[in-house]
Amino acid sequence: MLGATGAVGQTFIRLLQDHPWFRVAEVAASSRSAGKSYRDATRWLEGPMPADIAALPVRACTPDEVLSPIVFSALDSAAAGDVEPRFAQAGRLVLSNAKNYRMASDVPLVVPDVNADHLLQLTAQRAARRWTGGLVTNANCAATVAAMALAPLHKAFGLTKVFVTTMQAVSGAGYPGVPSLDILGNVIPFIGDEEPKIEAELPKILGALDGKGSFAHAAFGVSAQANRVPVEHGHTACLSVEFKRKPSVSDAITALSSWRGPDGVRGLPSAPATPIIVSDAPDRPQPRRDVNAGRGMAVTVGRVREDTLLHLRLVVLGHNTVVGAAGASILNAEWLASRGLLNA
Amino acid sequence: MLGATGAVGQTFIRLLQDHPWFRVAEVAASSRSAGKSYRDATRWLEGPMPADIAALPVRACTPDEVLSPIVFSALDSAAAGDVEPRFAQAGRLVLSNAKNYRMASDVPLVVPDVNADHLLQLTAQRAARRWTGGLVTNANCAATVAAMALAPLHKAFGLTKVFVTTMQAVSGAGYPGVPSLDILGNVIPFIGDEEPKIEAELPKILGALDGKGSFAHAAFGVSAQANRVPVEHGHTACLSVEFKRKPSVSDAITALSSWRGPDGVRGLPSAPATPIIVSDAPDRPQPRRDVNAGRGMAVTVGRVREDTLLHLRLVVLGHNTVVGAAGASILNAEWLASRGLLNA
Amino acid sequence: MLGATGAVGQTFIRLLQDHPWFRVAEVAASSRSAGKSYRDATRWLEGPMPADIAALPVRACTPDEVLSPIVFSALDSAAAGDVEPRFAQAGRLVLSNAKNYRMASDVPLVVPDVNADHLLQLTAQRAARRWTGGLVTNANCAATVAAMALAPLHKAFGLTKVFVTTMQAVSGAGYPGVPSLDILGNVIPFIGDEEPKIEAELPKILGALDGKGSFAHAAFGVSAQANRVPVEHGHTACLSVEFKRKPSVSDAITALSSWRGPDGVRGLPSAPATPIIVSDAPDRPQPRRDVNAGRGMAVTVGRVREDTLLHLRLVVLGHNTVVGAAGASILNAEWLASRGLLNA
Amino acid sequence: MLGATGAVGQTFIRLLQDHPWFRVAEVAASSRSAGKSYRDATRWLEGPMPADIAALPVRACTPDEVLSPIVFSALDSAAAGDVEPRFAQAGRLVLSNAKNYRMASDVPLVVPDVNADHLLQLTAQRAARRWTGGLVTNANCAATVAAMALAPLHKAFGLTKVFVTTMQAVSGAGYPGVPSLDILGNVIPFIGDEEPKIEAELPKILGALDGKGSFAHAAFGVSAQANRVPVEHGHTACLSVEFKRKPSVSDAITALSSWRGPDGVRGLPSAPATPIIVSDAPDRPQPRRDVNAGRGMAVTVGRVREDTLLHLRLVVLGHNTVVGAAGASILNAEWLASRGLLNA
Repeated sequence: MLGATGAVGQTFIRLLQDHPWFRVAEVAASSRSAGKSYRDATRWLEGPMPADIAALPVRACTPDEVLSPIVFSALDSAAAGDVEPRFAQAGRLVLSNAKNYRMASDVPLVVPDVNADHLLQLTAQRAARRWTGGLVTNANCAATVAAMALAPLHKAFGLTKVFVTTMQAVSGAGYPGVPSLDILGNVIPFIGDEEPKIEAELPKILGALDGKGSFAHAAFGVSAQANRVPVEHGHTACLSVEFKRKPSVSDAITALSSWRGPDGVRGLPSAPATPIIVSDAPDRPQPRRDVNAGRGMAVTVGRVREDTLLHLRLVVLGHNTVVGAAGASILNAEWLASRGLLNA
Repeated sequence: MLGATGAVGQTFIRLLQDHPWFRVAEVAASSRSAGKSYRDATRWLEGPMPADIAALPVRACTPDEVLSPIVFSALDSAAAGDVEPRFAQAGRLVLSNAKNYRMASDVPLVVPDVNADHLLQLTAQRAARRWTGGLVTNANCAATVAAMALAPLHKAFGLTKVFVTTMQAVSGAGYPGVPSLDILGNVIPFIGDEEPKIEAELPKILGALDGKGSFAHAAFGVSAQANRVPVEHGHTACLSVEFKRKPSVSDAITALSSWRGPDGVRGLPSAPATPIIVSDAPDRPQPRRDVNAGRGMAVTVGRVREDTLLHLRLVVLGHNTVVGAAGASILNAEWLASRGLLNA
Repeated sequence: MLGATGAVGQTFIRLLQDHPWFRVAEVAASSRSAGKSYRDATRWLEGPMPADIAALPVRACTPDEVLSPIVFSALDSAAAGDVEPRFAQAGRLVLSNAKNYRMASDVPLVVPDVNADHLLQLTAQRAARRWTGGLVTNANCAATVAAMALAPLHKAFGLTKVFVTTMQAVSGAGYPGVPSLDILGNVIPFIGDEEPKIEAELPKILGALDGKGSFAHAAFGVSAQANRVPVEHGHTACLSVEFKRKPSVSDAITALSSWRGPDGVRGLPSAPATPIIVSDAPDRPQPRRDVNAGRGMAVTVGRVREDTLLHLRLVVLGHNTVVGAAGASILNAEWLASRGLLNA
Repeated sequence: MLGATGAVGQTFIRLLQDHPWFRVAEVAASSRSAGKSYRDATRWLEGPMPADIAALPVRACTPDEVLSPIVFSALDSAAAGDVEPRFAQAGRLVLSNAKNYRMASDVPLVVPDVNADHLLQLTAQRAARRWTGGLVTNANCAATVAAMALAPLHKAFGLTKVFVTTMQAVSGAGYPGVPSLDILGNVIPFIGDEEPKIEAELPKILGALDGKGSFAHAAFGVSAQANRVPVEHGHTACLSVEFKRKPSVSDAITALSSWRGPDGVRGLPSAPATPIIVSDAPDRPQPRRDVNAGRGMAVTVGRVREDTLLHLRLVVLGHNTVVGAAGASILNAEWLASRGLLNA
């Protein structure tokens, strides 16, 4: 695990406790932390620190020091750019949360319950880059949550336009992250670089891989407005969408609630039983009440209704550090493992 | 003052303290409170209760008991429907915050710094209804804030479509209003009846009165999504807008920052020097930092930028109980007074 | 279950889901709700409402309508005074969260991990009141949390004085409870009737039952100051204490961390493995991070240190609606069941 | 002004805007900022940055670069230890918010509305240190708020013991200060080094200077417990106190509400009309509702009542960055100016 001492790294460690297939064998972080024990290097944020991890030495982020074949990376973008390809070149499968390579044409950008099949691009990637390992990314946390709700609708009715306004939790900014003086009783209508990420990543996530390994982005436009709100965990997104074929509200709800994700995801250890929970309460989803649906791996959709200008409006909520970050990486690794694709 | 003991009523009383033209002579409320002193009938929410008001007896909401010629009404909609017309019929000028008559064709719906001139409809209203008094409404608090930002843009470039997603303060729900268990660390993506109000009221507020007293709603469509956030005061709205003529960002900013409102508003006691403050900070406006701009009577606009799907995006913030409620009523009354229109 | 639709009643229902020994067979509430289904009568606050409970009819709170032999009561004090004795007289064992009978000399006031043995008073109670059933109370939520930390110290060193200042969560006030306008970004240094309860209940909870059924309150004084803070769940208490024998900090920590509660509690279905978790972190316990220790049934103690005026200072935190209310009732019922004392 | 770019420095600048006697002529900060304009060096937190200050160059914190005779210092303790004496030696009067010299026997530790007369120690200080300037400190923010409430009681009844539990606002930790992930919906029962400061400073603040320049700390003991709560501004303290002569509640209230502070404070530009506002509401003071009393320079006291163990309990609230920091320094400077003591 790279970047193991930060907020996303800690979520990885929490989610991998008692994992049936994977075990955190090594932790690595920046040179500031390397050499210390994990316990001493880390300001642990939630619940008790697992005792076996606490005792691990923190290694430097190089393939010589970190030897595991599967490498979860919670590095920030300043470090990920250089470090992650070195691991891929050294034969490791890197599952990255950083933004650096998400939009590279041969790097899969995967929300597992939306497009796990894009992971099959790894074969072409290895050939093109002459890597024995590989590099897989998961998406921006807000883009992930929106993509979960949009996937069934896109498949059934064909998206053409998406307006998305987000209200994002402070844990999305890591630790120490957002100063309390900035956010107590406040809204910040700006998150650096978030809107362009959402606008660029959604069409790639909902794109399609044809039989011959060629990949096409989905052909719809996105307009995103991102806000920070005083919520601990859980990104909420208000969506207005237009389709090729206008669905009825009831057809849309059917498409959402019957969604079972790509082949091979259901039944994996981290996969929720139902990836999309549709609420018919008038005032849901809400972050504090719905964020842990499916142990943080399901999103909750509510308020599906006609739009006055486009076709449909709806609200979606998901756990930004679980399904929106570490949990997605782990589920991607599980999908690859179940297909025997973890090794080149 | 009708409905004087509730949250909006209290804001009226705070804003009318030391007013140069008006004085709260009488307070009235529901039969539960009538007969008590204002002090005993009221759970006062902010700052000290003005001593002269505290001693007033609370009257019943009938024209026999409340004799003032100008009647500010903070009644809720359950009461306003019956009570307000009785006062208008009895020769009083009623300035109402309730939703009941906002969309009636002969009732002005006025955000003073947007369309104070619509108050001239009063003459036709009096004739049609055979009232010696009159009834004027101000708009829904979120619609008011959005209308302030949209007015200069509509005038300059002609609105055709508006997507608006709001993040609204808890004070908009009155007192006791939103239970803390519902909103601490949470977002509620629903406010009862709020979205239809925003969608209906904006085209009326931005409509036009021709010289002959005939009134036309503005011809643009609105799609609104309303959210409650854990903020005390200040509604924030994220807007995506399309125009007849696409403006440059810089032309839009010029239109906004040079806006001075309708004739006769500037210089009135409650009118802010500048109704729209345009911020060029990347992360403004913010409710806690900008809500009191212009003593709560100005809105702050920020993040004016191109939209990826329509023409422009921007964020606007205003004080929901001041410019969005009581303050607007008072400024309407000042405008009428300055024109000699308070009496039939 | 009496008072099943309110916040404490809902906690009972959540905690009794999948209980190995007890099942919610009947729900009862005020006449407003009686006759409706539980689903229709209840504004459910946390997580999904259990489907089997949702379908139950809400009964009136009379022994003719509610037939279960064990009656958990989440009634408020206005109703509990009349209703609870009627059930006890009708042969039911009532486990009450209301304050009405807590200080009655023949009614056990029990924090199970402190004084479960006080439940043996039931025999004398039945004789004195000629009841075939019985009435057991659990303590005020803040008193419960403080009692958990004080019990081992009292047993080992003999309390003489306790200063306690609490910072209490909003869920302690039920639903709708504290208006958000009162508590967002605020502290309210007052909770009605809370300080006298804490001061009176602590000496009773830590009192002793002698072999002959005679009961004596513990002989120490309490000074309580209660505050409401913007926290969802978890009451925090800062304690300064004086003892008959001044302990070292290390002896106090040993007494706390080795506490295993009264005989027969450990191993019960709702009993936490360790009732008191002692943290050596400088800044714990914290409500958001420690409230769910022991599934809400354990308290966390931290900052055990010398006092400059008395002997020791410490901070304790516990879940106010679990160990501080419904969970304590359930654990009391389990203790009685395990001893065969549920029936007269 | 030293340390002008931080949170306390900004409060100084806000409070000195339009000051009738003083003007911010120079701003200085750490070497990171020196050389930039104030606008570029500062993340401004509240309201608009004053235009004249924005244009000032940020100087280094040395007496060669900063030439003003009165030097307000908002330096943190890491810098203040070396820097402040250099200015005093160079003939400047330094008014410091840092903790470094507060407890030095010849340095006045002054809460102006409590002990402005301690400023007369400056003469002895200058003689002893051979300084042509001088060094004056104001107290820890929580100690200041508590001292304001205790001063009249100590004078009238003679304090012997004080238990104080604080609930402190996040602005007390500066900017960026407390991470939002640590404090949203949470309480942190620890503030580094805060409790010893409160315990040490209170007896010095309430100490007495005899006619011959000799100084004695007040002879009472203090036990402090400090907590951080999710409040923006305003420290609340719950006090239990014992006196030489036990006062009645009504005598205590009279002492508090009739307090007018030391000679020469009333009427100074920053002095509030009434330094202590006594509320008889059952649930006040509250930070959000009372923090700005006396423009942040008055404290509000409530809940004065008998204690069950000592003599009295009460709650006091004050603005931690105004009366608890920058405002106190400015009022100290005004007192010195009004006595002609600003220069040696």
